[in-house]
Amino acid sequence: MQDDLTLDAPQTDPATEAARLAKLRPADIVDILNDRDVEEAALPLPYLPLDTLIEIFDQPELIFAEVLILKLPEDLAARILSRMSFDRATDIFHEMPEDDATRMLRRLEPEARSAIEDLLAYPPNTAGALMTTEFVSVPADWTAAQTLDHIRKVERTRETIYAIFVCDPHKRTLLRAVSLRRLITADPAANILTVARDATPVTAPPTMDREDVARLITKHDLLAIPVVNRAYQVLGIVTVDDIVDAIIAEGTEDVQKFGGVTASEDPYMQIGFGQMLYKRAGWLGILFLGEMLTASAMQHFSDELEKAVVLTLFIPLIMSSGGNSGSQATSLLIRALALGDVKLRDWWRIALRELPTGLTLGAFLGVIGVARIALWQVSGFYDYGEHWMLVAITVGAALIGVVGFGSLIGSMLPFVLKAVGFDPASASAPFVATFVDVAGLVIYFSVALILLRGTLL
Amino acid sequence: MQDDLTLDAPQTDPATEAARLAKLRPADIVDILNDRDVEEAALPLPYLPLDTLIEIFDQPELIFAEVLILKLPEDLAARILSRMSFDRATDIFHEMPEDDATRMLRRLEPEARSAIEDLLAYPPNTAGALMTTEFVSVPADWTAAQTLDHIRKVERTRETIYAIFVCDPHKRTLLRAVSLRRLITADPAANILTVARDATPVTAPPTMDREDVARLITKHDLLAIPVVNRAYQVLGIVTVDDIVDAIIAEGTEDVQKFGGVTASEDPYMQIGFGQMLYKRAGWLGILFLGEMLTASAMQHFSDELEKAVVLTLFIPLIMSSGGNSGSQATSLLIRALALGDVKLRDWWRIALRELPTGLTLGAFLGVIGVARIALWQVSGFYDYGEHWMLVAITVGAALIGVVGFGSLIGSMLPFVLKAVGFDPASASAPFVATFVDVAGLVIYFSVALILLRGTLL
Repeated sequence: MQDDLTLDAPQTDPATEAARLAKLRPADIVDILNDRDVEEAALPLPYLPLDTLIEIFDQPELIFAEVLILKLPEDLAARILSRMSFDRATDIFHEMPEDDATRMLRRLEPEARSAIEDLLAYPPNTAGALMTTEFVSVPADWTAAQTLDHIRKVERTRETIYAIFVCDPHKRTLLRAVSLRRLITADPAANILTVARDATPVTAPPTMDREDVARLITKHDLLAIPVVNRAYQVLGIVTVDDIVDAIIAEGTEDVQKFGGVTASEDPYMQIGFGQMLYKRAGWLGILFLGEMLTASAMQHFSDELEKAVVLTLFIPLIMSSGGNSGSQATSLLIRALALGDVKLRDWWRIALRELPTGLTLGAFLGVIGVARIALWQVSGFYDYGEHWMLVAITVGAALIGVVGFGSLIGSMLPFVLKAVGFDPASASAPFVATFVDVAGLVIYFSVALILLRGTLL
Repeated sequence: MQDDLTLDAPQTDPATEAARLAKLRPADIVDILNDRDVEEAALPLPYLPLDTLIEIFDQPELIFAEVLILKLPEDLAARILSRMSFDRATDIFHEMPEDDATRMLRRLEPEARSAIEDLLAYPPNTAGALMTTEFVSVPADWTAAQTLDHIRKVERTRETIYAIFVCDPHKRTLLRAVSLRRLITADPAANILTVARDATPVTAPPTMDREDVARLITKHDLLAIPVVNRAYQVLGIVTVDDIVDAIIAEGTEDVQKFGGVTASEDPYMQIGFGQMLYKRAGWLGILFLGEMLTASAMQHFSDELEKAVVLTLFIPLIMSSGGNSGSQATSLLIRALALGDVKLRDWWRIALRELPTGLTLGAFLGVIGVARIALWQVSGFYDYGEHWMLVAITVGAALIGVVGFGSLIGSMLPFVLKAVGFDPASASAPFVATFVDVAGLVIYFSVALILLRGTLL
């Protein structure tokens, strides 16, 4: 909307620039800061009003928030971290070097410090780590009017007031969730429990993975989901905007892993040269070692290769077709598993679908392949030798086998990974291709040995 | 949460079963219906209360909603479609056969009919198609108390009441957005404009792509974004839960396209055998035709192949390394472009980063490759002939060239696609691999011709 409002060149005077920035929306200030290097971005910050600073650091889109905050005077940094939302402050502490984190934690206001220390204890990317403790809860013996009064009082210190949690006044266990929507249309004198929908609230344990939390929130169209302990007491809430960020991050992770890159959430331009090499060299090296088996397979068939060099012409074609069909099957099943369309126990149903699909697709490519060889031979473009027809049939038959095998392996790999506790999305296209390449060579030469024995071989 | 509550086997008596279903949460009923075939799923529906039916059909997760609704008595179907949210009803009409849609539209209640007809005019996956017209707007001369009273009255017929739009009383143009949060904590006698935040609301035009709408909502942490025409009048709103569904759908599309499959939103198990073949055969066939160029390239070098069969042993290894590095680069840049981390005009910066990255990665693999050949030769595992050292150097040098080329092409392809108006995510891993395979062969044999002339060649 405001693309023309970019302040690309930082002003010479940080105070003047801060005054200009303060007039923009927090998200737009974040965009501007993200476009600069950290040193420059930090300059105008101390001159911004505290409320604006809190809003800026509350944006998960701010890159290097953990570096920027440490460049501010420590007093100011402590005030920002104490008053911003606890879940986002926890994220920032997660990214900080441990020394700095310990020092800053000690300077926080007591309430913030204890809340953030609790949140830091949960593993990253779980409901516990995503949640905020700034939610509204009221005892079950209150009326609608009492609840509404309470909300008006605490509104400024709560991340959301659209979901209100009604708890047992003594045991503090969760009984019902009420939306602000129902509350404002309710009879003010009514007991809050009668205002609530007559259903147990959907909840998440603190250890639940962010992907599953996202699925629950989406499935039930919630604005916030309560995170409860085993005693069913509310520890915090995860709001829908936290989940949107989580879903986008998962999407990036899925595509990157599928591409064979170690996933990370840093924007492309912020990844240094060394880090970029590190992110890619690991997988590339492992795949290379795997792919070396193709050289071993070829060496194994080197006698056949010497006798029938014509066979080598089609090696890339056959191998890549297997890899492509495998990559198709993998991409379909990674998402089907991620979205819950398909369950682990369905693996045999998928195998029974993928094998015929793959064989049919292989036959389709086989026909094209045979036609291509025949066409070149008959029209005189190239001479595949006196046994060209047998060579063509070998290529066609190998394609059926390799593409069928590719679809089967490509579809089963995400299941195998999930079964042994990995993310199914770790089944990358290059990984599947490598697997299928080695097997594809063996299939191709085996078919050749059967069909060409006594003629070419 | 309720995994043990599955009603796998449908009851013999649809009315009894409807009574059991009615006790569950709408999202859980949808899960149960989705697990059945359409005929069975339709049986208990006419016995459910109208409110429950509306809630069920309001869930975007319900598969084949357009088939199910047509299996109900037409009176009932018209009542559901008239009273459910207009944006979701529009989705259902989009999926229906045209005859049925025309017939059903005529039976809707007049207000619903005109709203849905308007929404049907927008192209799918745009803000216009996603939006609902059921939002709250008030004239700028009202007080906070008047606004709150109005909301209490219209609450039941609005998709969300958490965002309230304040419009000019005469020109009906959008002036401000107020959150319910601010409204309930405001002085009741205050003018609604003074309650609003002093900033122009973030808006979207009806033609904006759902991906961009999602980006705006996430960036500004909105619960709903107003869709405005050129006169700045509000046509409708897109809410955050519509956007979550859109983001998940985009994620699926990105992974499927990257895997080389024609993207679709149908769950894996619901795609028929023929449709599955269709979804995959197209791309697989195109890739196969492209990959045929490898056979042509090989034919071109067939004299060299005859002379130096040892070179063929490393063809799969070199080709696949190029494809893998290309696939890594593509996956990184598809997401970077999708998230807006990188802009189209940055292409040369990326090229200047990817080429050295690729050459370095290629050198890393080259060293491993040379070591592998030397090790096998020296330890007597395999004999690569008297010029084995030259062969090893050829493989190493080709790897630098092929991996460098792969990274460059893999990173530039999403830019080329975006520049000519395609979705950058159409740059699939198989597509990149095919491209790099052909070039990789040419690079390999060219390096061989230079290094091995006079010895092997």
